[in-house]
Amino acid sequence: MSDSHDARARQNAARLSGTVRVVGAGLLGASIGHALRAKGVDVVLADASPSQLRLAIDYGAGRAAREDDAPRLIVVAVPPDVTADVIEAELAAHPDAVVTDVASVKLEPFDELRRRGIDLTRYIGSHPLAGRERGGAISARADLFIGRPWVVCRDEQTRPADLALVEALALDVGALLLEMTPQEHDRAVALTSHVPQVVASLLAGRLAEADEGSLRLAGQGVRDTTRIAASAPELWVQILGANAAPVVELLDALAGARREVAPALRAPAAPGARRAVADAIRQGNEGVERLPGKHGQNRRFETMVVMVDDTPGQLGRLFGELGELGVNVEDLRLEHSPGAQFGLAEISVAPASLRGAIEGLEERGWRIAGNTND
Amino acid sequence: MSDSHDARARQNAARLSGTVRVVGAGLLGASIGHALRAKGVDVVLADASPSQLRLAIDYGAGRAAREDDAPRLIVVAVPPDVTADVIEAELAAHPDAVVTDVASVKLEPFDELRRRGIDLTRYIGSHPLAGRERGGAISARADLFIGRPWVVCRDEQTRPADLALVEALALDVGALLLEMTPQEHDRAVALTSHVPQVVASLLAGRLAEADEGSLRLAGQGVRDTTRIAASAPELWVQILGANAAPVVELLDALAGARREVAPALRAPAAPGARRAVADAIRQGNEGVERLPGKHGQNRRFETMVVMVDDTPGQLGRLFGELGELGVNVEDLRLEHSPGAQFGLAEISVAPASLRGAIEGLEERGWRIAGNTND
Repeated sequence: MSDSHDARARQNAARLSGTVRVVGAGLLGASIGHALRAKGVDVVLADASPSQLRLAIDYGAGRAAREDDAPRLIVVAVPPDVTADVIEAELAAHPDAVVTDVASVKLEPFDELRRRGIDLTRYIGSHPLAGRERGGAISARADLFIGRPWVVCRDEQTRPADLALVEALALDVGALLLEMTPQEHDRAVALTSHVPQVVASLLAGRLAEADEGSLRLAGQGVRDTTRIAASAPELWVQILGANAAPVVELLDALAGARREVAPALRAPAAPGARRAVADAIRQGNEGVERLPGKHGQNRRFETMVVMVDDTPGQLGRLFGELGELGVNVEDLRLEHSPGAQFGLAEISVAPASLRGAIEGLEERGWRIAGNTND
Repeated sequence: MSDSHDARARQNAARLSGTVRVVGAGLLGASIGHALRAKGVDVVLADASPSQLRLAIDYGAGRAAREDDAPRLIVVAVPPDVTADVIEAELAAHPDAVVTDVASVKLEPFDELRRRGIDLTRYIGSHPLAGRERGGAISARADLFIGRPWVVCRDEQTRPADLALVEALALDVGALLLEMTPQEHDRAVALTSHVPQVVASLLAGRLAEADEGSLRLAGQGVRDTTRIAASAPELWVQILGANAAPVVELLDALAGARREVAPALRAPAAPGARRAVADAIRQGNEGVERLPGKHGQNRRFETMVVMVDDTPGQLGRLFGELGELGVNVEDLRLEHSPGAQFGLAEISVAPASLRGAIEGLEERGWRIAGNTND
């Protein structure tokens, strides 16, 4: 494990040089600090909160600012509400630096700054699609961005040398570069993140109103559908507020789709009703099929379900034996039966591995509760 | 593993005796057959499709019917569309038998039979909450119902001895008995299953219309929210049609919640707008919190994120070492970074185990990418 990571680290010498200034020492800012420092880049940290700043520095995410700092690249990693203000201040305070930000909405800060008449030649918005359930400098990790998409929003004014700096930042922290316009980006995150959040929250809101008995019938489906509804209200108020137009447009499209199917749901015996419902479900099938799978490909795996006792070491034995069988686990989902002392492990493997995995496990005494290739 | 299962099997001697007739040899019917036969119960299978019936018998789910069969219990496990017809036919053909069904909607078949003037004293509806992504007799498993809720809908006419038969069926296949009225049941599954299905399908429908580039920003959130949108249209047309009233009522409640929050999303700077959005997200938080956790309790676990190379045996080593550390894995989610050759394993453990698990894994060279108790 560590060998291959070391080898990868040696291949990836830092593309950035000089000093990078990171404004905002929360989860994203401090994680960028850790990742760049691991590459030997000089990182200066700033934060409106002295205690947050102190914490991030204590944890090794960077150093405090000095009078003579001359950063070439500034990364603004502050809450959405204050992103535009901080970008403006940093552009003014560092007239030779390129400024980027990591906010999850890209058009609003850009438009706001343009409305203020700011020269945005040296500003290049970006958005790393990374995060964790907990925020703050103490949750920061050098590997937060590894393998994650990092969107960079250039425009016609962007100078190639400036763009290269922002791209070097994304590559240095291990992210996968994607180029989009701010409009493309904001519509994409409305679709893949913001609207799913609203939908999950509203659906989970109905669970809040339900009687206790109903909830005992909840299975994995509703759990998955509402998982992200556990997200923090404070952050989402800002995100949704900053990306209101694309979010509302998509919610309207959803409401339209609902209105198309509602009469059919209301009167299932009416002519054409079954077809309308089937069409809606089938279109959902198509949408799910389009989501990129593992390694960015639409690879399909076979799944087998193994019964696992709920005691320490059982999963270890299972995965150890899969390793002995030469079977690579591509994906895994554990499902627990309410009241039962064991779980079901749904294990995805390459189609070519399925038969051997099942036979090998059964020989070793495991109970296979099913597979997708029966 | 096998020791404890054997012990459990010995404790659970069959409660049913005599012959059980199962009508419909698909996934549920054939699984009931397998589970009952494993307890030594005589199972007669019937199916409108001779090839499906032959297959289920070949796989050992039961035997063919004979002239002199005198079943005490009949289980109707046919598609929702024909459930009422088959219940009626079985009640008529077997005047001494108790008839139950396993359809996922309970009020509609009951009302339909009452409209036809059928005496329903010997009919007791039930619904095992179990299923698999693939259907058919070949996907059937004796352990499909173990630890799953099995709802039984008695009414004031139900005779105790008849109820005992249906309860014995549920207990013999290893399910957890729940008693509800048909109305309670149908509202509960509308909330926990049918409406999440509609919402996931409609949301995933927007993905079907999206451009390819947008979908590259899709993360685990939208994947979870839309996972069940991959379900089969044919089945869901029947289920939604049979439970139209509670589904439409909940969809209306959802639309109402959306209309409350929509103006706030549309005009995020308006007075009260932020609070309206925050309230909707917070109510979603509350709903998710109410979903029962593992073992039917609302236990909370701590989660740590471990980096795992994408090669055979790595997960085995990880779980083996967790077993050595005495740490029981309560839940697990594997996340793959697009383009990266490793994954992140989110592992849930009892709060008391977290610190020791992290320290032990780090001593053994694992990279911990975060935990919920920082």
